[in-house]
Amino acid sequence: GDARVDHHRALRQRQAEAVYGPGKTPDQCRRIVAELLAEPAGPPVVLTRARADQVEAALAANPGGQVTASGELATVVWRPAPPRPGRVLVVTAGTADLPVADECLAVLSGLGFAPRRLVDCGVAGLHRLLADLDEVLEADCCVVVAGMEGALASVVGGLTPAPVVAVPTSVGYGSSFAGLTALLAMLSSCAAGVSVVGIDNGFGAACAVGRLLR
Amino acid sequence: GDARVDHHRALRQRQAEAVYGPGKTPDQCRRIVAELLAEPAGPPVVLTRARADQVEAALAANPGGQVTASGELATVVWRPAPPRPGRVLVVTAGTADLPVADECLAVLSGLGFAPRRLVDCGVAGLHRLLADLDEVLEADCCVVVAGMEGALASVVGGLTPAPVVAVPTSVGYGSSFAGLTALLAMLSSCAAGVSVVGIDNGFGAACAVGRLLR
Amino acid sequence: GDARVDHHRALRQRQAEAVYGPGKTPDQCRRIVAELLAEPAGPPVVLTRARADQVEAALAANPGGQVTASGELATVVWRPAPPRPGRVLVVTAGTADLPVADECLAVLSGLGFAPRRLVDCGVAGLHRLLADLDEVLEADCCVVVAGMEGALASVVGGLTPAPVVAVPTSVGYGSSFAGLTALLAMLSSCAAGVSVVGIDNGFGAACAVGRLLR
Amino acid sequence: GDARVDHHRALRQRQAEAVYGPGKTPDQCRRIVAELLAEPAGPPVVLTRARADQVEAALAANPGGQVTASGELATVVWRPAPPRPGRVLVVTAGTADLPVADECLAVLSGLGFAPRRLVDCGVAGLHRLLADLDEVLEADCCVVVAGMEGALASVVGGLTPAPVVAVPTSVGYGSSFAGLTALLAMLSSCAAGVSVVGIDNGFGAACAVGRLLR
Amino acid sequence: GDARVDHHRALRQRQAEAVYGPGKTPDQCRRIVAELLAEPAGPPVVLTRARADQVEAALAANPGGQVTASGELATVVWRPAPPRPGRVLVVTAGTADLPVADECLAVLSGLGFAPRRLVDCGVAGLHRLLADLDEVLEADCCVVVAGMEGALASVVGGLTPAPVVAVPTSVGYGSSFAGLTALLAMLSSCAAGVSVVGIDNGFGAACAVGRLLR
Amino acid sequence: GDARVDHHRALRQRQAEAVYGPGKTPDQCRRIVAELLAEPAGPPVVLTRARADQVEAALAANPGGQVTASGELATVVWRPAPPRPGRVLVVTAGTADLPVADECLAVLSGLGFAPRRLVDCGVAGLHRLLADLDEVLEADCCVVVAGMEGALASVVGGLTPAPVVAVPTSVGYGSSFAGLTALLAMLSSCAAGVSVVGIDNGFGAACAVGRLLR
Amino acid sequence: GDARVDHHRALRQRQAEAVYGPGKTPDQCRRIVAELLAEPAGPPVVLTRARADQVEAALAANPGGQVTASGELATVVWRPAPPRPGRVLVVTAGTADLPVADECLAVLSGLGFAPRRLVDCGVAGLHRLLADLDEVLEADCCVVVAGMEGALASVVGGLTPAPVVAVPTSVGYGSSFAGLTALLAMLSSCAAGVSVVGIDNGFGAACAVGRLLR
Amino acid sequence: GDARVDHHRALRQRQAEAVYGPGKTPDQCRRIVAELLAEPAGPPVVLTRARADQVEAALAANPGGQVTASGELATVVWRPAPPRPGRVLVVTAGTADLPVADECLAVLSGLGFAPRRLVDCGVAGLHRLLADLDEVLEADCCVVVAGMEGALASVVGGLTPAPVVAVPTSVGYGSSFAGLTALLAMLSSCAAGVSVVGIDNGFGAACAVGRLLR
Ligand SMILES: Nc1ncnc2c1ncn2[C@@H]1O[C@H](COP(=O)(O)O)[C@@H](O)[C@H]1O
Ligand SMILES: Nc1ncnc2c1ncn2[C@@H]1O[C@H](COP(=O)(O)O)[C@@H](O)[C@H]1O
Ligand SMILES: Nc1ncnc2c1ncn2[C@@H]1O[C@H](COP(=O)(O)O)[C@@H](O)[C@H]1O
Ligand SMILES: Nc1ncnc2c1ncn2[C@@H]1O[C@H](COP(=O)(O)O)[C@@H](O)[C@H]1O
Ligand SMILES: [Mg+2]
Ligand SMILES: [Mg+2]
Ligand SMILES: [Mg+2]
Ligand SMILES: [Mg+2]
Ligand SMILES: [Mg+2]
Ligand SMILES: [Mg+2]
Ligand SMILES: [Mg+2]
Ligand SMILES: [Mg+2]
Repeated sequence: GDARVDHHRALRQRQAEAVYGPGKTPDQCRRIVAELLAEPAGPPVVLTRARADQVEAALAANPGGQVTASGELATVVWRPAPPRPGRVLVVTAGTADLPVADECLAVLSGLGFAPRRLVDCGVAGLHRLLADLDEVLEADCCVVVAGMEGALASVVGGLTPAPVVAVPTSVGYGSSFAGLTALLAMLSSCAAGVSVVGIDNGFGAACAVGRLLR
Repeated sequence: GDARVDHHRALRQRQAEAVYGPGKTPDQCRRIVAELLAEPAGPPVVLTRARADQVEAALAANPGGQVTASGELATVVWRPAPPRPGRVLVVTAGTADLPVADECLAVLSGLGFAPRRLVDCGVAGLHRLLADLDEVLEADCCVVVAGMEGALASVVGGLTPAPVVAVPTSVGYGSSFAGLTALLAMLSSCAAGVSVVGIDNGFGAACAVGRLLR
Repeated sequence: GDARVDHHRALRQRQAEAVYGPGKTPDQCRRIVAELLAEPAGPPVVLTRARADQVEAALAANPGGQVTASGELATVVWRPAPPRPGRVLVVTAGTADLPVADECLAVLSGLGFAPRRLVDCGVAGLHRLLADLDEVLEADCCVVVAGMEGALASVVGGLTPAPVVAVPTSVGYGSSFAGLTALLAMLSSCAAGVSVVGIDNGFGAACAVGRLLR
Repeated sequence: GDARVDHHRALRQRQAEAVYGPGKTPDQCRRIVAELLAEPAGPPVVLTRARADQVEAALAANPGGQVTASGELATVVWRPAPPRPGRVLVVTAGTADLPVADECLAVLSGLGFAPRRLVDCGVAGLHRLLADLDEVLEADCCVVVAGMEGALASVVGGLTPAPVVAVPTSVGYGSSFAGLTALLAMLSSCAAGVSVVGIDNGFGAACAVGRLLR
Repeated sequence: GDARVDHHRALRQRQAEAVYGPGKTPDQCRRIVAELLAEPAGPPVVLTRARADQVEAALAANPGGQVTASGELATVVWRPAPPRPGRVLVVTAGTADLPVADECLAVLSGLGFAPRRLVDCGVAGLHRLLADLDEVLEADCCVVVAGMEGALASVVGGLTPAPVVAVPTSVGYGSSFAGLTALLAMLSSCAAGVSVVGIDNGFGAACAVGRLLR
Repeated sequence: GDARVDHHRALRQRQAEAVYGPGKTPDQCRRIVAELLAEPAGPPVVLTRARADQVEAALAANPGGQVTASGELATVVWRPAPPRPGRVLVVTAGTADLPVADECLAVLSGLGFAPRRLVDCGVAGLHRLLADLDEVLEADCCVVVAGMEGALASVVGGLTPAPVVAVPTSVGYGSSFAGLTALLAMLSSCAAGVSVVGIDNGFGAACAVGRLLR
Repeated sequence: GDARVDHHRALRQRQAEAVYGPGKTPDQCRRIVAELLAEPAGPPVVLTRARADQVEAALAANPGGQVTASGELATVVWRPAPPRPGRVLVVTAGTADLPVADECLAVLSGLGFAPRRLVDCGVAGLHRLLADLDEVLEADCCVVVAGMEGALASVVGGLTPAPVVAVPTSVGYGSSFAGLTALLAMLSSCAAGVSVVGIDNGFGAACAVGRLLR
Repeated sequence: GDARVDHHRALRQRQAEAVYGPGKTPDQCRRIVAELLAEPAGPPVVLTRARADQVEAALAANPGGQVTASGELATVVWRPAPPRPGRVLVVTAGTADLPVADECLAVLSGLGFAPRRLVDCGVAGLHRLLADLDEVLEADCCVVVAGMEGALASVVGGLTPAPVVAVPTSVGYGSSFAGLTALLAMLSSCAAGVSVVGIDNGFGAACAVGRLLR
């Protein structure tokens, strides 16, 4: 095949094996997923940001995948990990951040977590976040998904002593510069100890949680 | 002289005449301030971001200036405007933002306001801002001075219906990129109707307040 | 629903509740508008940058909205605020800035203002602006909408002592870099006290006016 | 005082209270540290990136601080936390990254950890890292400190299933752009689940570890 | 014709004559290729990044071209150079880098080389590269094709004393910024003597190899 | 109408009145051109970067326009200026720069010049430019249209003492960054006295020539 | 010597031979100037941006140079060209732009022109420029020197049909980004036919004038 | 010691061991050089970009180093490699590029080459380069060192079929952006097969030559 799949990584990392949809033909998606599932006791296999035709091709040849549609793209998980402790909370700033949050939630589920989510908590309406302060304080780990000015990561980071993984999204217009503004803001957070993954990288945030809640 | 001072602007705008210190010799500062004060019933005259030698030269030839030292630079105001109504609150995120806030406060005083200030209200410690919520709600206008991720502007903008003028500062390190991060974050604020002036531009923020609380 | 609408914000801010069209399904637009209108004595509700199918879905379920078509997108206002004093002037540099100006005008109307507009006043033809100098001088607040080099904000700011809210637009080609040039130019304006909102953010400019002409 | 110290944060977060040296007078350093130590059972207090005169002033008034000199700047820790489990490994790419690594190590010690370090493991000489593979595999958490192209974070992330916190440094010349290259590279890491803090932010990385090894 | 073809360049350089597909009509492709082939003893002629309709038009009028389809675009070679010594290895980081690698491989073949390739060697799975260390050490020249954080160039550069030509690709999402991250990382490589060509420029890398393995 | 046409500018400048096509409806193009032509003894009227439907609408209502198709867009000139002395040479680097060069040539013709052009003179094949050195040395003004690294402007500027107007184009891939590279290179030209217009701004270059060859 | 001076360029271009001061030792300045003056009937020789020690060394060995001190740096001209017709006007926005304007004026004088200057014409005080409209309209060529938002170039370009050469300066703070804002604004000018030279490049602007007023 | 020196790299690469001066204490320079020389039959050892005090300390403890002073910094070579065939030509654009060229030349000598150099060949004076065309055509490899617009790399690349390694320098002002302009221009070169190293990286260019002329 034209991708040498990594059978060792799973042993080393107990993480998911991921296939990134964009730029692949439906047939490539189908074949790479199949190769990964051929490994007997392998880790979860995840197809991310897949278009409908990619999902269809991959599922036809590899039945049993769990599909999470997020916006126009979907995440598919095969062979999810067994349940695993650790309360993970995914907090989003606005409706438009949902596709990234949903990718994160789907991968977290694939890793065995039972994540909860809080939506529409933008800092311009603090009372909404404060109304659910309990959820924030009880979480073992918070993922904050926000675009625009990304301020939500600082606010959550100031409320909880737990790990906070911040995901800047490309949500916003004009001066948001496709997520760059949120990215820089999160990296400059005045809440010490917030760490950041790449723009729109809900998958990466889930993997970071998988590492720290072992 | 080598600067044609603008005697008409004051009539048109009832704003301050400002002399920007950096890049000018002490002698240029002295002469330009003198020319501006020569105008009989002119507006306040302000020397901003002045080094000690510039302040000294300007005061020696033009006595009566009120000096506000902010960090290594100072603001000097001559012929302040008569007192003027309007409750202005200047909120700062951290100690390091004080020089910019102080420039703003000095110019506001020169324009006739009696501004109040709240310091050290970074969003990582929301309880500090919330403890002074009354001050925020009573203000006719808030100036928010913040570096790093600039999230304070969004939080203040979400708490008050009054005008909010945001001043990004070059405070921060690494990923703050000398104020660019705070600038972009403030422009992308999810609190609708927050408006922004240039990086470290405490003077400009005071003038914006002068325009809107006429 | 998948968006927790903010019923408290209106009380706090007396501003409009906005739904940003891009990235939402027609059905999401319909439902969120409906939820916002369900609030008995709520503020104006505005759908911005909406495509035809979004407008249609939202109006079908929520009759009575006032549609302003601006280019390929539209702004819809439900439950406009009662008339409100304050002369607001929206000045645009070129024909291509009209969609952003129209969004601003529609939201201003929704907030209860009766805004006026001056079009095609680019600084390369100063006589056009100077011919309408009266309009500028009589306004309680000017919104300047300009792309390319954004110089119009400085010129207007030098003519009036009133508040000036500058909106950089993504109009222009090549070196305009999708509004970045106008944005930076407006933030660096030599006319003191001009304040700026994000690129193409006509909505934000209207909200800034709503704050300062309370 | 001119900084309102945050007595509540410690309760909420069990983290260190930090005073960032640059831009503060020796006297400000002295006073803020004193105020923080006045709190009876408070958390560790850390002065970061302090010049010699700042260290001297702060120590004179507040004896007992533990000084870590890193390059031209120092980190001082007062009232360190009691010992705390968790094997933390700090890996650096080159000699020039040591000041950032040392800041991180000093703060980790202040938080109660007994961190280990591996130096000079740049990816151009993989055998050096592979020679110490045991250390990497035994760590509960790895902090990777690297400038230039920042590739070390990806390599370490591919070797261990533990959490990896990456700190880009401003080390490098020309095309490193003061840490921006390493920052972007780490955010784009092909090793899933690596998370990143701001440029040169050794303090932030230590706090991130403090959060995730609670 | 509307392109003055360079019959002298071949004499000077013994390189390929290339026609860059994007932005040209099928007819332009056909005519320029024909003009280049009209030169009696000329060098190889290459059409790069050609869409299906461009390939078809060019082949119809100029039979005998060898087509390499890479993703949605193709490379076509006419009149390949005679076989030429020199073991060239093209190493790619991920599946998505294949189109750029394939363009490079096609042009290398056109220049008379018999290049080999190693795929899917991203540094997050070092064991894959190390498993083929022999191939790397036997090559007279390595081309490294990688997107995301581009770390593969540093690792290969640290393993072999042979020339390494690095090609950053626009593969990646969010913080990869369309190849800029990989480009800067490769230019900042801690492996001394790695040299770099433009983003996605598989053609340029092949030409660089053609220059250095004369 | 929704554009206040500038009847005074022509008097002041003896330049063309231009209508920029992108973002306008066919009907807007038609109406604005008509208004401009209604002015009795006005200057040339030019519609730039117009799509087929815009050209059609404008010509139907305003017959007599001269169409220059350049790539997918066209330039239309009505009421060209009478012939005017001055030898203008437009030099292009590659085939792909032709649309920008053609816009420039069409506007130059509209201004009354009889411009000549040299194509495909990229600096990698200097002999092509040197073969036409006479043309360069006889010109009263050279316009250099080039993308990629834009070096042609420096070479031409070093060969002639005449004015050189450089037009960076968005031609190129990867590291050309849509014309930014050529723009910066031309502004940094080591050939003193080369001046530059915006990216792809063939229209602006023609106007600059119109100013300097009065 | 370590610089191969270009004796042919003068013949080709009738321009000045320039030595750029920064980065050269006083001795290098002395020697290069001497070599250039050794050419019997050569063009003007100019030393630009020279520190006091460089000026002193160059003048001691090469007497007769005309020194223009501009801020901390100076321009020195030897062997000025004979007087030459053409009314050149240099317009500056603010006092801080004077060093760049003075470099331009000194080189223009060296080229044989008798340039005039208008100072302190920033667009925030249009009445100052309009008061000298005659000067602008009588000039055969205008050089506009401006930092901050650079809007002056557009305004002057809209007032005169003559050539306008715009020089962005690094004057300004924060959002001016060391001249980038003014540069982009001038390149995006809505006044057609304005052309631009590099940031702070007063020398280059003078050479551009030398080319166009031959 | 605080740097783990790489004794294996030399075996693998037959390259120089380099110590980068900036950011190291004189004592660190001394110790690291000593450790590297302690290796019996090791490769050349090079100290780059060293200040006078660093050179002095390193030489005092490690006699026999060959010093090349280039501007304010120096390169020191110990234990040079035995002579080695291969004609290397280093071409520079201007006097100010000499420090980077000299670092490259010193390292090339240390690697056993006898490099030649051509200075002051900026493309604005092509006749100077063409006068030495023989040197260019006879070289087995050309290093092109240029700042400003970096066009020299394209011109040299168009003249020779040999490998061309381009080094952008931070020479230039304003729009050169500290080497970024030259870097991007060289990466976008229309001369196919030119490869590029980092800004000011004369050392890296020498190592690239060392790799390709094995
Ligand atoms: N949604 C995603 N966001 C970011 N990175 C991803 C995503 N999905 C997959 N990846 C990464 O991309 C790699 C797979 O790329 P590929 O081999 O091209 O399928 C995985 O190893 C992941 O590290
Ligand atoms: N046209 C617009 N331009 C900028 N911001 C807008 C616009 N319309 C709505 N918004 C902002 O976007 C938020 C709504 O986002 P959402 O919840 O995704 O509909 C509002 O609170 C506004 O602050
Ligand atoms: N795939 C490619 N990537 C980068 N540069 C290319 C590619 N193909 C052709 N070129 C360059 O583009 C030039 C041809 O451009 P054109 O004359 O527009 O066909 C050639 O001289 C090559 O230097
Ligand atoms: N092709 C073009 N390139 C750059 N600027 C142009 C072009 N065509 C027209 N313009 C400018 O755009 C303005 C017309 O814009 P508009 O009023 O939107 O049609 C004119 O005044 C010109 O300055
Ligand atoms: Mg919402
Ligand atoms: Mg504080
Ligand atoms: Mg118009
Ligand atoms: Mg080392
Ligand atoms: Mg893969
Ligand atoms: Mg060609
Ligand atoms: Mg002034
Ligand atoms: Mg020279």
